[in-house]
Amino acid sequence: MDEIFRYEQLAAGIAALIESGTLRPGARAPSLRTAAKQWRVSLSTALQAYRLLEDRGLIEARPKSGFYVARALAISLPAPAISRPPAAATRVSVSGVVQKLLHHAADPGLVPLGCAIPGAELLAAGKLDRLLARAARTKGTDYNIYTAPQGDLRLRQEIARRALRWGQVLAPEDIVVTCGCTEALLLALKAVSRPGDTIAVESPTYFGFLQVIEALDLKVLELPTDAEDGIDPAALGAALDAGAITACLFASSVGNPLGGTMTVAKKRLILDLLATHGVPLIEDDIYGDLSFGDQRPTPFMALNPDADLIYCSSFSKTVSPGYRIGWIVAGRHRAKVLETKFAVTLCGPALPQAALADFLGSGGYDSHLRRMRRVFADNIDQMSRTIERVFPAGTRISRPTGGFVLWVELPAPIQSRDLFELALARGICFAPGDVFSASDRYAHCLRLSCGHDWSDRIEQGVKTLGALAS
Amino acid sequence: MDEIFRYEQLAAGIAALIESGTLRPGARAPSLRTAAKQWRVSLSTALQAYRLLEDRGLIEARPKSGFYVARALAISLPAPAISRPPAAATRVSVSGVVQKLLHHAADPGLVPLGCAIPGAELLAAGKLDRLLARAARTKGTDYNIYTAPQGDLRLRQEIARRALRWGQVLAPEDIVVTCGCTEALLLALKAVSRPGDTIAVESPTYFGFLQVIEALDLKVLELPTDAEDGIDPAALGAALDAGAITACLFASSVGNPLGGTMTVAKKRLILDLLATHGVPLIEDDIYGDLSFGDQRPTPFMALNPDADLIYCSSFSKTVSPGYRIGWIVAGRHRAKVLETKFAVTLCGPALPQAALADFLGSGGYDSHLRRMRRVFADNIDQMSRTIERVFPAGTRISRPTGGFVLWVELPAPIQSRDLFELALARGICFAPGDVFSASDRYAHCLRLSCGHDWSDRIEQGVKTLGALAS
Repeated sequence: MDEIFRYEQLAAGIAALIESGTLRPGARAPSLRTAAKQWRVSLSTALQAYRLLEDRGLIEARPKSGFYVARALAISLPAPAISRPPAAATRVSVSGVVQKLLHHAADPGLVPLGCAIPGAELLAAGKLDRLLARAARTKGTDYNIYTAPQGDLRLRQEIARRALRWGQVLAPEDIVVTCGCTEALLLALKAVSRPGDTIAVESPTYFGFLQVIEALDLKVLELPTDAEDGIDPAALGAALDAGAITACLFASSVGNPLGGTMTVAKKRLILDLLATHGVPLIEDDIYGDLSFGDQRPTPFMALNPDADLIYCSSFSKTVSPGYRIGWIVAGRHRAKVLETKFAVTLCGPALPQAALADFLGSGGYDSHLRRMRRVFADNIDQMSRTIERVFPAGTRISRPTGGFVLWVELPAPIQSRDLFELALARGICFAPGDVFSASDRYAHCLRLSCGHDWSDRIEQGVKTLGALAS
Repeated sequence: MDEIFRYEQLAAGIAALIESGTLRPGARAPSLRTAAKQWRVSLSTALQAYRLLEDRGLIEARPKSGFYVARALAISLPAPAISRPPAAATRVSVSGVVQKLLHHAADPGLVPLGCAIPGAELLAAGKLDRLLARAARTKGTDYNIYTAPQGDLRLRQEIARRALRWGQVLAPEDIVVTCGCTEALLLALKAVSRPGDTIAVESPTYFGFLQVIEALDLKVLELPTDAEDGIDPAALGAALDAGAITACLFASSVGNPLGGTMTVAKKRLILDLLATHGVPLIEDDIYGDLSFGDQRPTPFMALNPDADLIYCSSFSKTVSPGYRIGWIVAGRHRAKVLETKFAVTLCGPALPQAALADFLGSGGYDSHLRRMRRVFADNIDQMSRTIERVFPAGTRISRPTGGFVLWVELPAPIQSRDLFELALARGICFAPGDVFSASDRYAHCLRLSCGHDWSDRIEQGVKTLGALAS
């Protein structure tokens, strides 16, 4: 077999993965190194194959982050520009606004573009519910106790087992089960800060971060953020040099609302910067399992075992929002986190944790995740194309690397909060942009959820939104 | 029927209630006013009847708090003297100690005198577990969502319905479901205080109060407390006059660890004092349903609808510690409490709340409570008599008005923490006294749980403790 045939063979193999849907549009293609290893060719042969695939429009190179599967038809709307939040820390006051949003987001009568929870049909938690029913029937008495404050041991073992998939060695003792990612974030922030301290976040950032920061009387510093790959390290470095930051709270992968994922190189750079300045990092990996790439992104935690870092995650976006089960790995802050957990919730309910342990141990979770990722990628594609057709000229939309939310920047001067009221009156809920900032930014932006099966009702909702925004 | 006959008839009626066990040893007898009304006699006739019962040793008068059913054989050990904590506020630092206690308290291999949770056999939650299994099977998909942050509507309706029994009119909107009483207390304290503020508590007081106070960077002022009927209003008044208190956190009824219950008159006096000084009250009513009196004690909340007051309770002591479901009625602080809840846990798990609503709605909870109270009163009696036999001379023990913990004061200079280590080595767990204070008091005290069916194993454990303490 000569070399020419081998690069063609590799290209054909990758093309087949794309055609079969194993590699989805927008997913990261295997790295050259991985491809070379898997097909047993040289790096230069792999590069030849990738150039061929690029020529055919099947993949596209992105500077510094490798190759991605091309979208079937490129979305013509531009992506959001890098954000430019104010350089000063601000007090946070978003709670009132967010309460109103959540109130409406839970209303099943509205077209569900507001709340970042997948539809029940996609969560497919029937098996988990049956395991809960079984645990309640057969082990209810054993579990009618306060669990160890760390949470159910079997669940922590299952979580540790899963972390091995991205190369992270955890012991069950390293893990504390929490009431969703929310309690994990609260415990993490409380462990590394005092009232008045400043926490650096992406901009825009998840409003839940801002709420916890507000509740703890902290200030927030919003960092310039690229919709594709997260915060600007130079801006972070400058803020660190100025001594302006007590801790950082970043998405591990697939930020909310922008949907970007930092490259591993950027993550390493950030870890180095933080280590130099002795500033801890809290990473929220709630969307990591829903990344569209062929490999699950590596969390910060797995890149440097010595980093001063607290890892938070949850099962709320993938299978069980109703169970309220998250987890935290607090490293050197473990004792403080446990101590605070005693005072916040003491421990979580025992039976749901036992059922989730049974569920994870029984297999099938990974194929469930694969199915979700496929549907979400399709939903985002459908939503993007609909927006392209019906939103006003000048609209920008994000290119999520995973998860199920889309960030939409309207051409000024449309106010998304006015649009929110108009949309509610038409039976449509979305998340107005201003709740994702503590500095009165993003009033012209919307976050739209693609977490429900695509349907005429949802398409019509997006069309109505587009008409209202025009 | 002449008057003489009528007072004898009344006395016979009360005696019959005592004999049948409806009025338990140590329970508060009906007030003179109530008895007079029920038997349709004059107040002076009722008093005659009570004097007769007193002469017969069936009831005993306690100054300012009415009549109580005498114990079959009076416990000869003296009750604890009123506590004399320091008059200055102190920073709190109990968390490390408490973690160790809770770690051991959860160990099923130890004689369970440490943890204030009833034994599974007494909780008798099989029906609740079956209802959870049914809800998971039939309504799992509907409930796999974030609930309204206030919690399940049907559960809040059931809680409001129960509050009617002690004359409290609540709407479901007044209630927020929490992760046990712990989260309720955290939300309550956060709503009324800022870091550095001072919270007045009983002394000794529940270590969980101290942990939440510590987590919120608050200070604590321990008030002199009578083991029979709670804090000393004069000491509270003096501290209020000195402007030393931001808020009070008191047991509503059946304090932990002392087991005392304030009279209604004392509660009214305290409410008046607090209103005069504009200081809010947080009441923890977690043991109210386990009071031994013939009537459930009236919470502060029911005595003055205009009071600046936050009410906290939970189902953890009566049926479902493993479900972690508590509740809070925050009055004028409701918006702030809800806002903080978003940042602490967002909302609780949906299915356990639905199951508990089904359970409360299905009847049988009150007869369950009656059974628990009867067993706890007997357990406390057995424990008290055993202590009387085997503990050193000079030991004092509390006379709980409900619940299932006993407070034991050892004759100085025995250190309960030394005893704790010795007891652990002998396979016995109890709660050493120092965790119930932030001011290094009660090192010579023990809290013993009477929450498990009385058994040879438990009796032997108490005997071993007594020998170790001698």
